[in-house]
Amino acid sequence: MIAVLRNGVTETQMENLITWLRSQNIDVHISKGAYQTVLGLIGDTTKIDIDLLSGLDIVESVMRVTEPFKSANRKFHPDDTVVTVGKGENAVKIGGGSFAIIAGPCSVESKEQIITVAKAVKASGATLLRGGAFKPRTSPYDFQGLRAEGLELLTEAKKVTGLPIVTEIMNADHIPLFEDVDLIQVGARNMQNFELLKELGKLKKPILLKRGLAATIKELLMSAEYIMAGGNENVILCERGIRSYDTYTRNVLDLSAIPVLRGLTHLPIIVDPSHATGVARLVKPMAMAATAAGADGLIIEVHNDPKNALCDGAQSLTPEQFDDVAKRVEEIRRIIAK
Amino acid sequence: MIAVLRNGVTETQMENLITWLRSQNIDVHISKGAYQTVLGLIGDTTKIDIDLLSGLDIVESVMRVTEPFKSANRKFHPDDTVVTVGKGENAVKIGGGSFAIIAGPCSVESKEQIITVAKAVKASGATLLRGGAFKPRTSPYDFQGLRAEGLELLTEAKKVTGLPIVTEIMNADHIPLFEDVDLIQVGARNMQNFELLKELGKLKKPILLKRGLAATIKELLMSAEYIMAGGNENVILCERGIRSYDTYTRNVLDLSAIPVLRGLTHLPIIVDPSHATGVARLVKPMAMAATAAGADGLIIEVHNDPKNALCDGAQSLTPEQFDDVAKRVEEIRRIIAK
Amino acid sequence: MIAVLRNGVTETQMENLITWLRSQNIDVHISKGAYQTVLGLIGDTTKIDIDLLSGLDIVESVMRVTEPFKSANRKFHPDDTVVTVGKGENAVKIGGGSFAIIAGPCSVESKEQIITVAKAVKASGATLLRGGAFKPRTSPYDFQGLRAEGLELLTEAKKVTGLPIVTEIMNADHIPLFEDVDLIQVGARNMQNFELLKELGKLKKPILLKRGLAATIKELLMSAEYIMAGGNENVILCERGIRSYDTYTRNVLDLSAIPVLRGLTHLPIIVDPSHATGVARLVKPMAMAATAAGADGLIIEVHNDPKNALCDGAQSLTPEQFDDVAKRVEEIRRIIAK
Amino acid sequence: MIAVLRNGVTETQMENLITWLRSQNIDVHISKGAYQTVLGLIGDTTKIDIDLLSGLDIVESVMRVTEPFKSANRKFHPDDTVVTVGKGENAVKIGGGSFAIIAGPCSVESKEQIITVAKAVKASGATLLRGGAFKPRTSPYDFQGLRAEGLELLTEAKKVTGLPIVTEIMNADHIPLFEDVDLIQVGARNMQNFELLKELGKLKKPILLKRGLAATIKELLMSAEYIMAGGNENVILCERGIRSYDTYTRNVLDLSAIPVLRGLTHLPIIVDPSHATGVARLVKPMAMAATAAGADGLIIEVHNDPKNALCDGAQSLTPEQFDDVAKRVEEIRRIIAK
Repeated sequence: MIAVLRNGVTETQMENLITWLRSQNIDVHISKGAYQTVLGLIGDTTKIDIDLLSGLDIVESVMRVTEPFKSANRKFHPDDTVVTVGKGENAVKIGGGSFAIIAGPCSVESKEQIITVAKAVKASGATLLRGGAFKPRTSPYDFQGLRAEGLELLTEAKKVTGLPIVTEIMNADHIPLFEDVDLIQVGARNMQNFELLKELGKLKKPILLKRGLAATIKELLMSAEYIMAGGNENVILCERGIRSYDTYTRNVLDLSAIPVLRGLTHLPIIVDPSHATGVARLVKPMAMAATAAGADGLIIEVHNDPKNALCDGAQSLTPEQFDDVAKRVEEIRRIIAK
Repeated sequence: MIAVLRNGVTETQMENLITWLRSQNIDVHISKGAYQTVLGLIGDTTKIDIDLLSGLDIVESVMRVTEPFKSANRKFHPDDTVVTVGKGENAVKIGGGSFAIIAGPCSVESKEQIITVAKAVKASGATLLRGGAFKPRTSPYDFQGLRAEGLELLTEAKKVTGLPIVTEIMNADHIPLFEDVDLIQVGARNMQNFELLKELGKLKKPILLKRGLAATIKELLMSAEYIMAGGNENVILCERGIRSYDTYTRNVLDLSAIPVLRGLTHLPIIVDPSHATGVARLVKPMAMAATAAGADGLIIEVHNDPKNALCDGAQSLTPEQFDDVAKRVEEIRRIIAK
Repeated sequence: MIAVLRNGVTETQMENLITWLRSQNIDVHISKGAYQTVLGLIGDTTKIDIDLLSGLDIVESVMRVTEPFKSANRKFHPDDTVVTVGKGENAVKIGGGSFAIIAGPCSVESKEQIITVAKAVKASGATLLRGGAFKPRTSPYDFQGLRAEGLELLTEAKKVTGLPIVTEIMNADHIPLFEDVDLIQVGARNMQNFELLKELGKLKKPILLKRGLAATIKELLMSAEYIMAGGNENVILCERGIRSYDTYTRNVLDLSAIPVLRGLTHLPIIVDPSHATGVARLVKPMAMAATAAGADGLIIEVHNDPKNALCDGAQSLTPEQFDDVAKRVEEIRRIIAK
Repeated sequence: MIAVLRNGVTETQMENLITWLRSQNIDVHISKGAYQTVLGLIGDTTKIDIDLLSGLDIVESVMRVTEPFKSANRKFHPDDTVVTVGKGENAVKIGGGSFAIIAGPCSVESKEQIITVAKAVKASGATLLRGGAFKPRTSPYDFQGLRAEGLELLTEAKKVTGLPIVTEIMNADHIPLFEDVDLIQVGARNMQNFELLKELGKLKKPILLKRGLAATIKELLMSAEYIMAGGNENVILCERGIRSYDTYTRNVLDLSAIPVLRGLTHLPIIVDPSHATGVARLVKPMAMAATAAGADGLIIEVHNDPKNALCDGAQSLTPEQFDDVAKRVEEIRRIIAK
């Protein structure tokens, strides 16, 4: 960590600061330039509060040299993490060269619906089934999901098709209901629900952590760190579009986040082109682009009857459209894997 | 709600859509132009999913004419809501011409600290005491607050000074611990933690709802709507800065949100200049500006020893600095109140 | 265009507005709902100032139903525009299924440098040569380009290799110097330099129009419209990353802009992965992703000696790296073109 | 400037880098930590291209310790700059405690209009007259201003009222036409039109430099630096709202930019609440807030007949509304000036 001091700082002020830093087990190197004195802070600076330090009168600015995340950091874990989702013969690997497509409806609506979609996406190559049971909706008047009943219907679809299931959790109190869920999703709106992250850190089950609506890459990694610090290292990151000033798409899908994250962390990275764009017509080109950019997987909304879907029909593909997307993605994968 | 149809839509396609809309109790007016056919949707369109509609192949775009929030909407409740916080002689009114300053440390650290700060801010004119017990921190390695113990220390400070207390909740399971808290704060990171909002909607206690890191004004009002739809109409909104591309301040304080919200809603609106800017030096001008823009109150961080504060010292004022800010704000209030 | 009137508007006020609109040759349909009266404006609304209308006291909001761009609008020109750059046997087509790679150094530095790079990128499959002569730099103290001399060196490289040349213009006064330039680039910072756009609209030469640092898709199309309204329909659009709140990459490359623009306009769309990311390591995955998303071409920085480049060395590829990128892009193109 | 090297850099690689830096007259301090080697670069680092350096394979990140602007930097010019606009008895000072209100119509439309408005705003306390002659409009089909004729009408209004005049320039070729203009405005869309800035740097006339649509504070100062580097130190900065993801206001007015800029630069800072919000109703609260935040002046749109204004009527005040705003601003000023 580097602290740049203001012009005109006295020796006494500087000595006081250094004494305080040393009391925090931080070693300090002093470098005096013509205009500016710079302190190099050496030691375990993850415990130094950068806001506090930069707020001191005598400090002009503070810059971190090392990232504040550890468990998620590729520097300390150079090899790719491969997360195994589900058990037995249907178990699916994600990361380290293993690519997976998660597909299914935005919301679980009925037994018939979820089983129909599950069979269709499996036939097209999906290896995991998604479906919303607890739904975070911007309006209290919108459909909130079938909740516990939705989880049961997902479990039935798993029994029929063998596909491991992925669904979103919104409340740590619901964890007992998620016993049959193979991959627990934390939605964008809960990416910094730290109380929830801590509880998920106590599980052994894999977690799919979606990037917040306007989260930085560092914040995404710090949220992964919350889960990992609790002992659960099975975290899969998901880019799902970030907020921008433009209104033609719901979000801007930040595909450069894939290679950037690849450099910073060993965790697998998947992409959600459905929520990112909010428009079915854009899912195919963005799914192909995400694959070409090196993603470890995709999560795509598919509905057998998008017009009558209870939520987010606008961005759902029909099973036929999904089949086409899956084929094109597979072709891109063959180039990438070379 | 207005739906613009794509060029080349057939009569049959349009009839199908209209039949479906009418089955949702929506009346439809058709307006055909030279290039475009436009449908006017009349009735209770809050239940129409705008994403679903705009995702249909035959629909080019959809625009809402009425806002999707009701309880929070000034159209249906023209008079300003005045929220009373605390009981008896120390009760404080916020909104409808009543202005309040909430002040106190970022984190409660010790009995001595919180009582010292509480007395100081009261002497300078603050009428409510803030202090963090449960702290949402970006890093799992940063100080997470004294939690339940912090709440007890706040209660002691209330006994000593009479100031009603304000503190943040991060988990609905903690509600029983908040019995003595007079105003429960929902932080920016939990603005769309809908499970939490629903539980707070069941209380009678006032809620201070902070705008999310990159939330739109409409999203803030929809989150207020979650609380109000549950029956709790005592909601105070708080602008605390929004995310931007610039790095000189932590956030951009969106003061135009005050008059914009004033037009849209009857709820009181306060401003947090401390978290918005992250820098003590900027708190005074922004507190004055927020007051001049018509805010119903301020929430300001004050610490007796900012350098040694366990969190966010950079943005805390000393009691002396706070006293100066409070005086200047009072002068601005006199102009506004004329 | 739709205008929603405020509650409580009198008949007289509404009549006055309608009379004024009709005097502008706009026909008006009135639709009265329970809460709201909505006016449908029919006719050539491109001349109605949306800001003026929405600013009237009696108007609550105004929404455009048709886009304000015409010449660039796919609705009125359904077929893809194919732009031909350069003359004779070295002419290159861009758009409508024809894909092109533009490559070369950020700045032209010397005769030897530009010819070396030109030969290298041609050997790897580039069909156009780029090179900066007039350079827009954020700091007045940074290298500003060789200016007129740079243009001469580009012309020499064209003579040697046959590659048509692409370079940026910053000032309409320089147009006479650009006679030998085959494709004139308007940089992101000048996307709304309307005086420059108007002058370029008088030329017959193709224009490469880069999206502004934080321009919306609509603004990009309106700037294309400025050029086209003058009579020059040879416009190629370029996505080059937009500003975001994150700092890990210089910009966020908005690849969903490709399919979105494809729907809105008939103009060709290329992508600049070098400026978007600012980091050489990210150019390859983003070039592949852009191609997979359906771009009509790429513009990539290549330098024979990136460490000593006078500008933007950080994002330049070596000729060997470029050769690898070009091969991978070609493989993706084969899938797309199926 | 600080350069953090990647792990695993060899001694030879580091030596090569240091040799190259020393050849650029930069002295280098080496600081080796357990995980990381950090280089401190000492000397005139304004000439080091930060993008180039951070792009080298062996460099992980680069951070500037000193700002890249000099002439505009308060560090080297601690006293506030006071800019004098106009001549003789009507000259107006801006900055260093002198506050000025610039008012007038968005566009000059006719002799009668500009003189009527000029007299009205003078009577209410404005000391400078604004009016657009050359208008940057997003659409080529919108009114582009009266151009040279508009400048003549402004000059006539100056003769009648004595008010110095302020108007926007869009093209360096027009400089000769601006001889009678007292303060030349560079609009947001031209903030990085560096060719124009360089030409304005050769004048002696004061320049009003508006912040770009999504410009950082540093970029604004670097654009001021372009003008000042040419020898013209009479630059006034203008905050006019920045782009955000919300759509309720046209821009977000960044009032914290005032105290932030105050710390970084000695140049005067004014605020444009009209363009920032785009809505007349928001101008008054934002004008008062800007004044309370410490601005050196305001620029406000006033029109005698906003409904029929040729552009931006939505955000123009009537003379009566302006009179009210000016009075309130004056009251706030009295508090600030204490």
